[in-house]
Amino acid sequence: MVQLGLVGLGKMGFNMRERLRAAGHEVVGYDRNPEVTDTASLAELVSALDAPRIVWVMVPAGDATRETVLELRELLDPGDLLIDGGNSRFSDDKKNAALLAEKNIGYLDVGVSGGVWGKENGYGLMAGGAKEDVARAMPIFDALRPEGPREEGFAHAGSVGAGHYAKMVHNGIEYGLMQAYAEGFELLEAAKVVEDVPAVIKAWQRGTVVRSWLLDLLVRALDEDPELDDLEGYVEDSGEGRWTLEEAINNAVPAPVISAALFARFASRQQDSAAMRAVAALRNQFGGHAVKKVGE
Amino acid sequence: MVQLGLVGLGKMGFNMRERLRAAGHEVVGYDRNPEVTDTASLAELVSALDAPRIVWVMVPAGDATRETVLELRELLDPGDLLIDGGNSRFSDDKKNAALLAEKNIGYLDVGVSGGVWGKENGYGLMAGGAKEDVARAMPIFDALRPEGPREEGFAHAGSVGAGHYAKMVHNGIEYGLMQAYAEGFELLEAAKVVEDVPAVIKAWQRGTVVRSWLLDLLVRALDEDPELDDLEGYVEDSGEGRWTLEEAINNAVPAPVISAALFARFASRQQDSAAMRAVAALRNQFGGHAVKKVGE
Amino acid sequence: MVQLGLVGLGKMGFNMRERLRAAGHEVVGYDRNPEVTDTASLAELVSALDAPRIVWVMVPAGDATRETVLELRELLDPGDLLIDGGNSRFSDDKKNAALLAEKNIGYLDVGVSGGVWGKENGYGLMAGGAKEDVARAMPIFDALRPEGPREEGFAHAGSVGAGHYAKMVHNGIEYGLMQAYAEGFELLEAAKVVEDVPAVIKAWQRGTVVRSWLLDLLVRALDEDPELDDLEGYVEDSGEGRWTLEEAINNAVPAPVISAALFARFASRQQDSAAMRAVAALRNQFGGHAVKKVGE
Amino acid sequence: MVQLGLVGLGKMGFNMRERLRAAGHEVVGYDRNPEVTDTASLAELVSALDAPRIVWVMVPAGDATRETVLELRELLDPGDLLIDGGNSRFSDDKKNAALLAEKNIGYLDVGVSGGVWGKENGYGLMAGGAKEDVARAMPIFDALRPEGPREEGFAHAGSVGAGHYAKMVHNGIEYGLMQAYAEGFELLEAAKVVEDVPAVIKAWQRGTVVRSWLLDLLVRALDEDPELDDLEGYVEDSGEGRWTLEEAINNAVPAPVISAALFARFASRQQDSAAMRAVAALRNQFGGHAVKKVGE
Repeated sequence: MVQLGLVGLGKMGFNMRERLRAAGHEVVGYDRNPEVTDTASLAELVSALDAPRIVWVMVPAGDATRETVLELRELLDPGDLLIDGGNSRFSDDKKNAALLAEKNIGYLDVGVSGGVWGKENGYGLMAGGAKEDVARAMPIFDALRPEGPREEGFAHAGSVGAGHYAKMVHNGIEYGLMQAYAEGFELLEAAKVVEDVPAVIKAWQRGTVVRSWLLDLLVRALDEDPELDDLEGYVEDSGEGRWTLEEAINNAVPAPVISAALFARFASRQQDSAAMRAVAALRNQFGGHAVKKVGE
Repeated sequence: MVQLGLVGLGKMGFNMRERLRAAGHEVVGYDRNPEVTDTASLAELVSALDAPRIVWVMVPAGDATRETVLELRELLDPGDLLIDGGNSRFSDDKKNAALLAEKNIGYLDVGVSGGVWGKENGYGLMAGGAKEDVARAMPIFDALRPEGPREEGFAHAGSVGAGHYAKMVHNGIEYGLMQAYAEGFELLEAAKVVEDVPAVIKAWQRGTVVRSWLLDLLVRALDEDPELDDLEGYVEDSGEGRWTLEEAINNAVPAPVISAALFARFASRQQDSAAMRAVAALRNQFGGHAVKKVGE
Repeated sequence: MVQLGLVGLGKMGFNMRERLRAAGHEVVGYDRNPEVTDTASLAELVSALDAPRIVWVMVPAGDATRETVLELRELLDPGDLLIDGGNSRFSDDKKNAALLAEKNIGYLDVGVSGGVWGKENGYGLMAGGAKEDVARAMPIFDALRPEGPREEGFAHAGSVGAGHYAKMVHNGIEYGLMQAYAEGFELLEAAKVVEDVPAVIKAWQRGTVVRSWLLDLLVRALDEDPELDDLEGYVEDSGEGRWTLEEAINNAVPAPVISAALFARFASRQQDSAAMRAVAALRNQFGGHAVKKVGE
Repeated sequence: MVQLGLVGLGKMGFNMRERLRAAGHEVVGYDRNPEVTDTASLAELVSALDAPRIVWVMVPAGDATRETVLELRELLDPGDLLIDGGNSRFSDDKKNAALLAEKNIGYLDVGVSGGVWGKENGYGLMAGGAKEDVARAMPIFDALRPEGPREEGFAHAGSVGAGHYAKMVHNGIEYGLMQAYAEGFELLEAAKVVEDVPAVIKAWQRGTVVRSWLLDLLVRALDEDPELDDLEGYVEDSGEGRWTLEEAINNAVPAPVISAALFARFASRQQDSAAMRAVAALRNQFGGHAVKKVGE
């Protein structure tokens, strides 16, 4: 059994603390929210742990993660190990690792997949960093990952940054998968040839080529709301899809499906599209085609 | 100077009659609208023309065109020539030609481009059919097409159907061109780096690689409404874009730009997207991500 | 236990006969291939069955299916039931059903998913047709479908055509899913940030959002050939993807992901692209950009 | 008449010098290529000009431009003006301007469009920077831009960076336009319904909605090589398309057409596609579908 500091007890961190404790590990958590935190401050968290420490950071990517890394850099001791398990851009990792290396603090970046189901099912994990740091944190990884062969729920993806890179691509793929099911759902709804759309989608759960965990979740959503009309077709995106596309550009890799999925999200958030106003204006100009005026 | 029967005096046909008459040709027009027609019926139109006749049909594609062809088949004489200048699907042409050939009536299909500007500028023309029929109708084509070398405004594209096929592909390209400008416009509007977007687009009219007639029309639209916010981003599609995509599928030709342009129009007409409701539902299921409920 | 005639003993039909017999049903099979057939002719197959008969047709979609339906129409008796389990276009079903209805022969269309794994795992099934015909064939469906709750591996999708429609959309989704994984794989390969790509993909099998049966198959493929470089990036398409896109067009449903996946297959089969020759020519014309001449 | 220093006398700079001299301006050029340069060094160029100087930099974007800016920063005097007319990323401009401002040297960024035709036709120009700097350089802009109203060939797009931003979006649009024509060309070639494809495209030059300068260039290319089969479908991309897409991502603007055009270029340069190998492998795994093995 190992001891772990865990910074960030939101939707993900909170559940991870539960899963780690259920596995018998000692977790000292810190969060700004007094209702969930175990310690009053980062400093208190660090002093509650025996050196050499492992501190897992699970806070929002970007500024919040960087600030936490910088704070912990001052608090931790040489030989300690910091793990960034958030959805950080892989390009942040090398900087974080270098900042910590100056103080002889180790660094791992870990992509964590599984969402709110991870507490129960375990989390898929992709780690980047030095072999010995990975080995040191392995008891934690083993507790967090799903049951079954280790290599089916955990990978040491490469050196620093590779864990978040793998997670980024994972999420890019996820965008594409979701959009593929979504287009099929919309076509079934629109065509009205299939009379019981939720029944058909439910029947895809066993034996078919398209069976997947995301399909199971779509079935779950349709069980609750068979036409999904309680909610709006408004979809956020959280960074990884954009980064995947940027990396596709940087590596000259065609990514038509992942980009289409991202653009569909962008479009879903627009009340009106300037592009389509331009197309409407052009059609009106050359063909005298009717346009919809605002307020009509 | 030749004599021509012209069936269908809507936005296109009306202007074509003007242009043909201005060129000195004799045009006898028929339209169901008594305010624009020259004759009271198709029969009257046919008897007003000297055999061998040329009758140009300019009515909506599909049923209306087929019915007109069938009516004229009964009224015309062997040796007459019928020209379908509407936006018919190329696959209708062979059927029309065969129906007319039974009575020894000739057939040409002609794609006509240029919209409301054609009266003044002339129309781009693409014809399909027999060489001798094309030659026979050439005085009409020469009057309708723009000034300048014939081959820059008129083509004999091939046998029956080829004219409409060429026009179909022309329109598919047109969808892509419009969407390209539209995406650029939206990006300029959104990024707010360029301060005077209409001025930049106006400055693309001379010297640049993107100069075109569509760009000139966009400049015109922006002159009237600099942010295009009098109108809604709602865009119809009129058949040729869909047919182009179907033909791309039939010929295993990748058409990512033309399809993206068509799909953007489909999406522009949706109040809400079932697909994006599905994606929102999935994100909510796995990640507990917030969704927008209807009415919120 | 029921009795079934099964026409077509190829990759799919052969395995289905095995699975049905293993479940205790009596199957009389017919195939033109003498090595696998049970009977010498369709007529012999029909006479080997007790009326009222059920005959399952599992031959290639299109002409082969239509011919088999027409032949069986002459051989079967009123009250018999024909099931088309092939990958037929849904629009063929109404015609087939009408042809058979003239002789009081029932008709069901059934989409069958699962590929070569169905013999062992069971097949996902989507049926279209009359309720009483579905009920009558249910013992066969129960034997073919995977173990578990019936509704997770079988759906009565609606009236005639709905089964194949559901299967068509299933396959359209499948195209999108495969392309999403493929783009992610290519990016991982190209970027070389992740050092052990197959290990990362294997680690996605448990706990992650992207876990699926297709992912398991990708892991299997990578186990055999870690860079997939024994094979060429040449991919056929078999109809359903095209039909799905045609239906998206007919129903004005945006399908950017499914179309992108289809176009990627088209492009994969081209030695050289006429479109890209045109782009190269244009760049050369305006910018004097170098082009690759054939043979250089 | 004004005096101008011009650094970089490649395809673009060389022609610009010609056009400026033809308009009566005094141009002192510098290039590393001794065959085209007027001066032996940047220092010599600077001393050949009377203060306050204007120096136009026309060298490859990125490092070469930055280095030239840094060199000129040491050579120029307060009150001089540097213009970057290359295809620089807009994000470089603010840095360049700040570096020069430290020495009280002014800065304009100018997007220049028109390719090898600009010498004759004039160049479309988009400038970013201070109003007074734009006014100062206006005689040069007026000589470079095409004849006709100034606002149809020149725009002051906004503050520093806006000129290159406008040019970037211009090029993104250009990618989309070229791909639209290219898809149409490929479909016409593949379908073989139109018998004389070059004749049809030539006939689009007058009167049609798709007429444009790019279309004129396509006609020119087809005049030289009617099936474009002297060259390969291999297309480079030069930065602006990628940047446009990155900016679309940053601004959450859907850009399906521009991205499709970019990805088509990426794909055109691949001998084989890892993505499509993955799809082929998946189809083989689930369906036993044949794959092409390397070397077959």
